[in-house]
Amino acid sequence: MNKPYYAVIFTNLRTEGDNGYAETADKMEELARTQPGFLDFESARSGLGIAISYWESLEAIANWKKNSEHLMAQQKGIKNWYSWYKVRICLVEREYDFTKKTTAL
Amino acid sequence: MNKPYYAVIFTNLRTEGDNGYAETADKMEELARTQPGFLDFESARSGLGIAISYWESLEAIANWKKNSEHLMAQQKGIKNWYSWYKVRICLVEREYDFTKKTTAL
Repeated sequence: MNKPYYAVIFTNLRTEGDNGYAETADKMEELARTQPGFLDFESARSGLGIAISYWESLEAIANWKKNSEHLMAQQKGIKNWYSWYKVRICLVEREYDFTKKTTAL
Repeated sequence: MNKPYYAVIFTNLRTEGDNGYAETADKMEELARTQPGFLDFESARSGLGIAISYWESLEAIANWKKNSEHLMAQQKGIKNWYSWYKVRICLVEREYDFTKKTTAL
């Protein structure tokens, strides 16, 4: 990922019970991965849930937001799954990483 | 948070065992919260760990990165705690949120 790209940070708190959430969450991740301009997806939950999707452009993000299956999931999210969420659209300006070297002793 | 601000996304995989990690992670969050320009901190782990700190400016991020206690923690992170990590510095361009209304019935 050498060009500037975007991150959508979705931070959320769930309501009680599953109510079909896990299945839809998996489906939405799969579906997102097939969208034009999709780059990567990362998620974790410790009470607070954080899901970050990475995209080539704002246009790709807008298209994903209005995808019809995703729209239905967003509506269920508001009705059933989330007590709170926050979405942040971010331009990734710089990045670096580290991978542990395995030492051959 | 009305002005443009920055997010530092720290995505990571841990090595096996605690090795003093949890204590230092808590300390670093506490210390970050006292730094000039600090706005907020969110974290979650499901195997993959995601920690996001929010800052008023790139300068605030640079100052936190070179904080002496934080530098020591970063060194231990590379030596002992992380098998992989990625840091992304992002400009938050837009945000919106949702809070479930409690209905009084």
